Amino acid sequence: MKPKHVRMKGFQERRRLDDVLKALLKKVARMPPEKIPTISALGRIAYGSVEAKRDVPHFDRAAMDGYAVVAEDTFGCSQENPAKLKIVGEALAGEPVKHRVKRGEAVHISTGAAMPQGADAVVMVEYTSVHEGYVHVYRPVTPYQNVSRKGEDVKIGEVVLPDGATIRPQEVGLLLQCGVNEVNVSMKPKVAISSTGSELVEADEEPKVGRIVASNEYVLAGLTRIYGGEPTYLGVTPDEPGKLRRTVEEALKFDIAVFSGGTSVGKYDYMPEVIAEMGGECIAHGITIRPGGPTAVFIVDQKPVFCLPGFPVAAMISFESIVAPTIRSMLGAKNIDPRPVVEAVLARRVPSSLGRRDFVRVKLEERDGKLIAIPLRVAGSGILSSMTKADGVLEVPEEAEGIEEGERVKVKLFLHVF
Amino acid sequence: MKPKHVRMKGFQERRRLDDVLKALLKKVARMPPEKIPTISALGRIAYGSVEAKRDVPHFDRAAMDGYAVVAEDTFGCSQENPAKLKIVGEALAGEPVKHRVKRGEAVHISTGAAMPQGADAVVMVEYTSVHEGYVHVYRPVTPYQNVSRKGEDVKIGEVVLPDGATIRPQEVGLLLQCGVNEVNVSMKPKVAISSTGSELVEADEEPKVGRIVASNEYVLAGLTRIYGGEPTYLGVTPDEPGKLRRTVEEALKFDIAVFSGGTSVGKYDYMPEVIAEMGGECIAHGITIRPGGPTAVFIVDQKPVFCLPGFPVAAMISFESIVAPTIRSMLGAKNIDPRPVVEAVLARRVPSSLGRRDFVRVKLEERDGKLIAIPLRVAGSGILSSMTKADGVLEVPEEAEGIEEGERVKVKLFLHVF
Repeated sequence: MKPKHVRMKGFQERRRLDDVLKALLKKVARMPPEKIPTISALGRIAYGSVEAKRDVPHFDRAAMDGYAVVAEDTFGCSQENPAKLKIVGEALAGEPVKHRVKRGEAVHISTGAAMPQGADAVVMVEYTSVHEGYVHVYRPVTPYQNVSRKGEDVKIGEVVLPDGATIRPQEVGLLLQCGVNEVNVSMKPKVAISSTGSELVEADEEPKVGRIVASNEYVLAGLTRIYGGEPTYLGVTPDEPGKLRRTVEEALKFDIAVFSGGTSVGKYDYMPEVIAEMGGECIAHGITIRPGGPTAVFIVDQKPVFCLPGFPVAAMISFESIVAPTIRSMLGAKNIDPRPVVEAVLARRVPSSLGRRDFVRVKLEERDGKLIAIPLRVAGSGILSSMTKADGVLEVPEEAEGIEEGERVKVKLFLHVF
Repeated sequence: MKPKHVRMKGFQERRRLDDVLKALLKKVARMPPEKIPTISALGRIAYGSVEAKRDVPHFDRAAMDGYAVVAEDTFGCSQENPAKLKIVGEALAGEPVKHRVKRGEAVHISTGAAMPQGADAVVMVEYTSVHEGYVHVYRPVTPYQNVSRKGEDVKIGEVVLPDGATIRPQEVGLLLQCGVNEVNVSMKPKVAISSTGSELVEADEEPKVGRIVASNEYVLAGLTRIYGGEPTYLGVTPDEPGKLRRTVEEALKFDIAVFSGGTSVGKYDYMPEVIAEMGGECIAHGITIRPGGPTAVFIVDQKPVFCLPGFPVAAMISFESIVAPTIRSMLGAKNIDPRPVVEAVLARRVPSSLGRRDFVRVKLEERDGKLIAIPLRVAGSGILSSMTKADGVLEVPEEAEGIEEGERVKVKLFLHVF
């Protein structure tokens, strides 16, 4: 009598990660826009490209402290033979234009002040001295030297923020300078999260033998936030079809549903079945990745629904591989995967299997000026401490049977969190 | 008659960045701790190391669906010659231990369930079949195979979070698993920010010729947040000694004061003078960096006070070089500079001067599988759009007179923001 390969049977349709993402992202729609104050837009994703509403700067400005002059008046001057120009006034930053500079004249000017009419250059104060109402200029300037010209940074109507760009501090600053005080950004996808499993108790309870605290939903909520979504905890759901169904119904009020646990093909892993019964279209049940293989992906009511493994490392890897790109795609973000990638030398061979993408947790260390990627030895998908010791993840592609010691590898770093 | 080198005179004491940081960080104290719920600790910095309050897992658990057995009973079994064990019960995840497994017996067990007494291994269900109350086992298991042992991830009393570590999603999860529901973190330094300059109007006003909107404080507030501080805007302060003094007094109610503008040695750049009059100890007035040279750093009432240049690019570079490490140091963060560093090939020579550290904005592109760093041509320190086009910054050290095309360089990336 042959053994029943229950698990292998359940996952006989394991799909490649790239195929799953391609099939999934085709079916999810971009979030609608919302208009918000630019000063509150840090970290948001631009919805549509944004054009400047005014030139930056919007007038010719002195870029240095010194004297506004007609450049031609300084041509040929030198330390020995200074140009002598009559000082006809002073232009301060913040003042309207009050002066007109004619040939043979100069206006004392501070950085940022509007250029007087007629003047086309600024001589730095370092190269001048003053004598009885005249400024002596010791170095010639070319036209527009030391002048920030109107529109030199940005011209009115120019696109200053492309569709899908992330609004960083510098984008906030530039938008304000351009007169864009409100900006269209993609609404954040609202992500409902529940840990499922009859062994789970809420995190603030003391678990008896046999029970464990639910921590995945807080990990996944943190990741949701970092990738640009807005998480809501639905709490723990026991592995009972009726309760799971009610949780799924509640989760479908949000834009994305993420469950962890109960997604395998064990006797009590009802979740995929419950979702299928609710009319969910199965994009994948089982993905050729490790950890994270027992991940199921559905579309229900046009919304992406993810059943991630209950093991915490597998849940994290699966989230970063499949849920995160979905969030970024719904945001319309240009960089679907914002994780920085660094090159490093692999400190030790990592084995893998053909046809499966392995995610190896690595720690980075600099040795003799070279960046070394050290695979963490404890690799069980339940061992969350391996993630806390890691700086990032090394992917062994489906086509490789491992990576040799000493090879140059690309490591995806965990994202900065603040 | 020789020209007066006012600016050069004012900055004759320009200091090297490393020296400024060393002198400054010696004088700033770490923020005090605050105890907060672990589930709200994402992005915070651990104050003191944190020990596990329970083992993880806190009981021996099945790591697979299958049968809990005495491993010895399976030794030598095979597809042709299965071990036959009497099924004496079922252990479900979440239940207390109810069974005792004796030699010749097995308990059907689900992933995560507590191991029955006497059993020391789990046979995966894939390698079994059931016949009239007996399970046939087709592959031997070694003791503790497919068992997550008590304390295998974390042992009670073990340090799970070192002092100064950043709390990422995985740290939140691990702390909760270890029974640490509250955690000591460094309080966020409160950072007061004001843009100074008589030419400035608030960002929501329409500036007349000669005036510009204040945008630096929003840029610096964003950076403050990303590096772990808590910004407060004090609004625009005109370049008048009395008003500047009142702003400084207000700012000293916070942990760090950051001003932009009015820090040069022009006729109306009062700020450094005002701060010196208030008893501020000058750490630096002028730093050998570009952009950002006209930066002044003081300690007033034991608090760091920064006068950054008014030009937006200079203000950002100066913030990331000097203010950010101060915030991180006050947080007690282990990584003072959290920016990821990537290696790239320089696409074009960048010139520099000996004795000065240059910060070159670069855009990264992948060409033929190689990462290329393209210096942005527009390099004026007023041109904020150059920062929005950049992915990061390349530092040309004080000892170099530039970097040649084709050289491998390290680029500090801008931090992820969400």
